[in-house]
Amino acid sequence: MAGLSIFGIPGLPEIASGMDLGALIADSATAAGSPLEDGDIVVVTSKIVSKAEGRQVRLAELEVSPFARQYAEKWEKDPAIVELVLRESRRVVRQVGPVLITETRHGFICANSGVDQSSSGGEGIALTLPIDPDASAAIIRRALKARGVDVAVIVSDTFGRPWREAQTDIAIGIAGMQPVTSYIGQVDPHGHEFRVQALCTADEIAGAAELVKGNISRVPVAVVRGLPWEPDDTATMQSIIRDTEHDVFR
Amino acid sequence: MAGLSIFGIPGLPEIASGMDLGALIADSATAAGSPLEDGDIVVVTSKIVSKAEGRQVRLAELEVSPFARQYAEKWEKDPAIVELVLRESRRVVRQVGPVLITETRHGFICANSGVDQSSSGGEGIALTLPIDPDASAAIIRRALKARGVDVAVIVSDTFGRPWREAQTDIAIGIAGMQPVTSYIGQVDPHGHEFRVQALCTADEIAGAAELVKGNISRVPVAVVRGLPWEPDDTATMQSIIRDTEHDVFR
Repeated sequence: MAGLSIFGIPGLPEIASGMDLGALIADSATAAGSPLEDGDIVVVTSKIVSKAEGRQVRLAELEVSPFARQYAEKWEKDPAIVELVLRESRRVVRQVGPVLITETRHGFICANSGVDQSSSGGEGIALTLPIDPDASAAIIRRALKARGVDVAVIVSDTFGRPWREAQTDIAIGIAGMQPVTSYIGQVDPHGHEFRVQALCTADEIAGAAELVKGNISRVPVAVVRGLPWEPDDTATMQSIIRDTEHDVFR
Repeated sequence: MAGLSIFGIPGLPEIASGMDLGALIADSATAAGSPLEDGDIVVVTSKIVSKAEGRQVRLAELEVSPFARQYAEKWEKDPAIVELVLRESRRVVRQVGPVLITETRHGFICANSGVDQSSSGGEGIALTLPIDPDASAAIIRRALKARGVDVAVIVSDTFGRPWREAQTDIAIGIAGMQPVTSYIGQVDPHGHEFRVQALCTADEIAGAAELVKGNISRVPVAVVRGLPWEPDDTATMQSIIRDTEHDVFR
């Protein structure tokens, strides 16, 4: 029964700005009786990465633009949240009624630029996505390497998608392994190229990790063990962002 | 180390029309030394479901419409494939250059209505999606129940998505468990509703299963073990299809 196992890492403390996530993850895994091993893939919820990186914003301190204010008032939204969403965006993709879909400064397209007021660490505080989730993943990977384990790291977030209700966890940052498995150029016995040419393994791993983390529980880190990957420190999730010009749903 | 395990079921024969997938899956799992257990979630690639249900189409027998022909000629596509894609669609969502994104008769939105010419079982043959993937999943679930195991079943396919390169496996049919885990109404300690209100667990399971199946390998079935689910025989993937009227990316 070859295969993979996925388990959460319990026991992490409440994360505050400046904390060393790599060290905390390694220690919690060991304390839980399942120390990290070479070849593991460690999936870290972006929320705790944001907290460790001080990405909390005090809403009362934001100067709200007229555009944000009129939209917020029309749809009974918090004006400071709308302001923050716009500041975290480089483009509004859809603004339909109260629904605000934006392209984040990283190039990800999601609701409200990933701004989150729940479990943000305090009243009147909102949490924003990490500034560079690939770099965040690389920092955690390096911290774990310094402790003697060679693991890949994925920073995950929960995004909606068009056409399908409910959300799924996907990867917004990666370090150590490429996010995509490519079958381009391979053909079936009749010479037909496979319909599927590339799989975004990183997104599937992020979703798989969510199954054990549970989205609103306090297990923000999970380990995927048994899935082979080639070490590659040039990897980035930026590589899977489709050019706007080539996207038929821009 | 509570958690879940995921493993593929090797040894399935080449699937032909009329075969009993449930029986073949149970027998292959047992022969591989990992018999199915109550509570397992069995993820079956739609391709073998289509084959078992005789969803192969002989391209030479299709009468190609003028619309399909002119489009195929303009973009150097196979006219019979374009014809079949349109027949499998109820709506063209985007038709931009050679890219044809359609809404299938089930309501799923994907490239080419899921029509696949690779590994279709013969030259000049294309494979179409199962007519009712929820019913397909229910048939497999019942067949396995008759053999003494109570498992949930997901029929998976590989879809692209806007904005992100590469594809992922998602669920197109389900039986035995609801596809969504809801957090609606739950609040954090400050009374804020969680940003994430519902997770499409079924899609995450389908993606997780792909990690061990490998998309073009010959392991079309995987088992997810250790993930709790509530038995529910009213479940359907139709429930996650967003109404076109409420979709800002229609």
